[in-house]
Amino acid sequence: MTATEPARPPALTQVRLHDAFWSPRLEANRAHTLPALYAKLQEVGALDAYDLPEYAKKGITIPKTHHVTPQMWWDSDVAKWIEAASASLVTHPDAALDAQIDDVVERIAGAQQPDGYLNTYFTAIEPGKKLTNERDWHELYNAGHLIEAAVTHHQATGKTSLLDVVERYARFLAGVYGTGPGQRPGYPGHEEIELALLRLYHVTGRREHLDFARYFLNQRGALPNYFETEALARGDDPRDFWAGTYEYMQAHVPVREQTQVVGHAVRAMYLYAAMADLAAADGDAALRAACERLWADLTRHSLYVTGGLGPSASNEGMTRPYDLPNDTAYAETCASVGLAFWARRMAALTGDGAYADVMERALYNTVLSGVSLSGDAFLYENPLESDGTHRRWAWHACPCCPPNLARILASLGEYVYAVSAREVTVNLYASSTLRTDVAGHRLTLTQEGAYPWRGDIHLSVELDAPATFTVRLRIPSWAQGATLTVNGEAVDATPQQGYAVVTREWRSGDRLDLTLPLVPRRTYAHPAVRQDAGLVALEYGPLVYCAEGLDQDADLHALSLPRGLALSARFDPELLGGVTIIEGDAVADTVGGDDLYSAAPPSTHPTRLTAIPYAVWDNREPTPMRVWLRETVR
Amino acid sequence: MTATEPARPPALTQVRLHDAFWSPRLEANRAHTLPALYAKLQEVGALDAYDLPEYAKKGITIPKTHHVTPQMWWDSDVAKWIEAASASLVTHPDAALDAQIDDVVERIAGAQQPDGYLNTYFTAIEPGKKLTNERDWHELYNAGHLIEAAVTHHQATGKTSLLDVVERYARFLAGVYGTGPGQRPGYPGHEEIELALLRLYHVTGRREHLDFARYFLNQRGALPNYFETEALARGDDPRDFWAGTYEYMQAHVPVREQTQVVGHAVRAMYLYAAMADLAAADGDAALRAACERLWADLTRHSLYVTGGLGPSASNEGMTRPYDLPNDTAYAETCASVGLAFWARRMAALTGDGAYADVMERALYNTVLSGVSLSGDAFLYENPLESDGTHRRWAWHACPCCPPNLARILASLGEYVYAVSAREVTVNLYASSTLRTDVAGHRLTLTQEGAYPWRGDIHLSVELDAPATFTVRLRIPSWAQGATLTVNGEAVDATPQQGYAVVTREWRSGDRLDLTLPLVPRRTYAHPAVRQDAGLVALEYGPLVYCAEGLDQDADLHALSLPRGLALSARFDPELLGGVTIIEGDAVADTVGGDDLYSAAPPSTHPTRLTAIPYAVWDNREPTPMRVWLRETVR
Repeated sequence: MTATEPARPPALTQVRLHDAFWSPRLEANRAHTLPALYAKLQEVGALDAYDLPEYAKKGITIPKTHHVTPQMWWDSDVAKWIEAASASLVTHPDAALDAQIDDVVERIAGAQQPDGYLNTYFTAIEPGKKLTNERDWHELYNAGHLIEAAVTHHQATGKTSLLDVVERYARFLAGVYGTGPGQRPGYPGHEEIELALLRLYHVTGRREHLDFARYFLNQRGALPNYFETEALARGDDPRDFWAGTYEYMQAHVPVREQTQVVGHAVRAMYLYAAMADLAAADGDAALRAACERLWADLTRHSLYVTGGLGPSASNEGMTRPYDLPNDTAYAETCASVGLAFWARRMAALTGDGAYADVMERALYNTVLSGVSLSGDAFLYENPLESDGTHRRWAWHACPCCPPNLARILASLGEYVYAVSAREVTVNLYASSTLRTDVAGHRLTLTQEGAYPWRGDIHLSVELDAPATFTVRLRIPSWAQGATLTVNGEAVDATPQQGYAVVTREWRSGDRLDLTLPLVPRRTYAHPAVRQDAGLVALEYGPLVYCAEGLDQDADLHALSLPRGLALSARFDPELLGGVTIIEGDAVADTVGGDDLYSAAPPSTHPTRLTAIPYAVWDNREPTPMRVWLRETVR
Repeated sequence: MTATEPARPPALTQVRLHDAFWSPRLEANRAHTLPALYAKLQEVGALDAYDLPEYAKKGITIPKTHHVTPQMWWDSDVAKWIEAASASLVTHPDAALDAQIDDVVERIAGAQQPDGYLNTYFTAIEPGKKLTNERDWHELYNAGHLIEAAVTHHQATGKTSLLDVVERYARFLAGVYGTGPGQRPGYPGHEEIELALLRLYHVTGRREHLDFARYFLNQRGALPNYFETEALARGDDPRDFWAGTYEYMQAHVPVREQTQVVGHAVRAMYLYAAMADLAAADGDAALRAACERLWADLTRHSLYVTGGLGPSASNEGMTRPYDLPNDTAYAETCASVGLAFWARRMAALTGDGAYADVMERALYNTVLSGVSLSGDAFLYENPLESDGTHRRWAWHACPCCPPNLARILASLGEYVYAVSAREVTVNLYASSTLRTDVAGHRLTLTQEGAYPWRGDIHLSVELDAPATFTVRLRIPSWAQGATLTVNGEAVDATPQQGYAVVTREWRSGDRLDLTLPLVPRRTYAHPAVRQDAGLVALEYGPLVYCAEGLDQDADLHALSLPRGLALSARFDPELLGGVTIIEGDAVADTVGGDDLYSAAPPSTHPTRLTAIPYAVWDNREPTPMRVWLRETVR
């Protein structure tokens, strides 16, 4: 039996995590990331920007590049902070933070214009340019993040103070954009508002927001291209578009005709997330098919093993199939956050665990690597090889990633479970409690385990009365030989669309015990990937591993793993907050004479390899790092 | 017995080449490169620039980057064309070309100012900025190239029309720059004039030019740094120097204190060439020691196997020891031309064949790869790996390399031989005739062979009378088991400082027969070179080989050479004008399923490798290329 209707994530308030792996990261997010972000937003002036006339008088501007300035998307950074902080309130009530959010919300509300428009930059700094360059200037992107912030703020606190503001703003925008008389047939240059409007629809139930999201998605890529029309209206030559192609923002053809993941990676992920959500809401088969085609393209041709994507810095995005450079990988943190958004929606839409596998890969690897264990240093790019000079930073000229990380971590519960009328799906394994309604009854599902270090996972059921429904437990594609018992009796764990499926009458006290065999695995890239030829990656459960120089006796590039040699895993409670490391025998080229070139190959000597999870790299002193390691065929 | 005095290159008129390998390249240079360069210089306006007032009226300017425009170094491009064209007249008299040169020389002379100053840009376009920014604006660099042009023009034609002009200009500059009263303690931002002045000294015998060259070399890097003084005089903040460090132009410390090759690679090579030449002229041991230190640094840490150098595009130069990226290698053609300049002078200064080995490596590989077989398409960067998109072009915004190639090829004879009072040194093996004086007698030395395809080299002696002198034949360091006979009788060929040395009374009809064993060789990089770990390069004689995709059945990155397996060499008269190819059995990863990542390593299948000389890569349709190939240890 498979999913019969699109599942939805549980409400934030329905999940509580108490997990040895995630909880310290979430605590660092709450205790360190959130205050650090607020301080930075204050420092750069993003919060003061809401004091519109006063702010404009200060004459503060930031140098532009590519006809943009980071000030143009300050609203989105503030919004993401609100979203993250609000989600944090659910798991960690904090009156001071609640008041701080209220204060920011009040300032935002105060900056809303009489007609509903709300954007600090185009009200205070360049009011004359309002709504004239959606291609480059991110107004709808900012609006989207404000809407997402409002939805989460409402979900977390029950308050409508920001929700009311964004609904007014959404209605203003719905008046501006559309195909009706006097409207502009536009859509965002940087997608975001589409998925935000769908969230707004889900939380308010108001179909106007669903309709507006559907309009944006349907209009995208229509001819004549809106960004040409808009450029001509500005008096610009559309051929002067700096990115050179509307593939950059996935506006080259209508979305249902798109077959290849192209352009800016974050934009692509946000767009596809919205497409998947709309396909579910509308039962739109063509849109679902487009999502599935794009997914196949990404996962077969362009996804890093770490769940990163978008190898190129020049377009912050995609290049060619099988082009996966390691040391120059851009692989923006936000792109992997966006991939988790999309994957969660695809899993919900299709009921297929393969999507949740990729969601897990993104979350446990490139999303987590984006923030230090301490919670106050961030990666924008996530290379798979570093000479030791690629480090986390405290802030960035374009600080999109830190608050994006903060909001996805604070709302992790939405990724652990999914629910529909008669099904509960467990997508991630993390000690937690889910309280939800299923089959007309109140269910409390408690999950315990030490994943990803250990593969035994225990779930217990509490119900107000016996009830018949389905529990779906994801069996990751890498888990060979998973076993499952219900109340101690073995049941069939053969994956159906990636899930062990148990439908029965459940009673309080029922217990599921799942075992996912966890062993170090060797992973090889498709032979068409030039950059990984002759190399091997190591994985353990959902985690991709890397070698850091300071754990080895040899240079990383000099080190080679003999194929077939056993690797062992060992939990080290002292290392990096407690991680399972992978160890194995290796050989290393021996540094000998002075000659730069020689007729004799380097001699080798035995050495040991120690690998750590990629998620926690660059949390010690600067040192080289590699995910893909040389392998010697014996 | 080793060299007892610094050798000098023969005059251009003393060497005639008739070599199956080089002569077609030199003929392409003469027949195609020279006219193509002239046409381009005319097309961009570089020749018209000498019509100073008229040109200025046209208002032609080219957009600047980094405070410079290519117009600022047009004079050098014209000069290099004169130099190349003049040298070509020696081997291929051509009245039309001679007249064309005279015409350009006349225009140059006409642009010389009453005080001797001569620079089109700072006379016609921005006269107010004359002599104000030697750090960035290349005035002394242009002067250097004019001087070199004049020297070669004079050597080739006996004319003094340009020589007179540049001597006046040199005297003007010697009045401006110096440590005397009213003089500026400056020196070039882009070195070139130093080696040019030394050439001017050698051809004129006037010590004033030697003294001026010595001044420039001694002053370089003195405190306070001249470029700071100069910036302050302009009203600029010296800290705003875009390159950030005077290492960029090797002006960070005095030249005798320099220990590491740093900064812009071409500048470094031109500087060191001048240092070696001055060390020879002055018998300056400290300067020679600096040259030897810098040479050891380059050849032990930073020289590509192809004789390229300067891996980084950002400074067109050096980075860190052992940093030798292949696909992003900048390795500017001009840098390898400059390396040949330096190496020739080091070989002459020290009598050590190790320098000529590197000179040969540069000439046969990265210098030759800089120009197509057809002579009309050029490489600026010379990567050691390409995905097929790195192609030669017909011109460049900064067209320094094509005329640099043209002049070094046209003057190749200077690299084949070196002469001193009682010694003749054969540094390169190429069918040719040298006519020179040695030990007070007239010698004609004729060399015959099919190098680099075959290793048997035959030299015959013709003398006006029997004479005792030394013949030194370079035994390349890769040549194991070289043998030598004189008049059919074996003589000791054990290299002394890299040369087989024969001192005897020579008579007309004497014959030397040298055999250098030529076999395909495998070459490995030092284990500290991250980018070459696990890889092997193939060489044959002086040639480095590469694999081009169109010669293989498998993708280049999928292909691996089993270590120890025999490789064979075969001359293919039809391929690329006739080249020896290297062939061998190889294995290739088999492209199988759709999965981007897999637990199973790729299976392999047997295949064949065909490698061609790097010197002739990218002379067919676009195709990937690699020098460093994967090697499998069996």
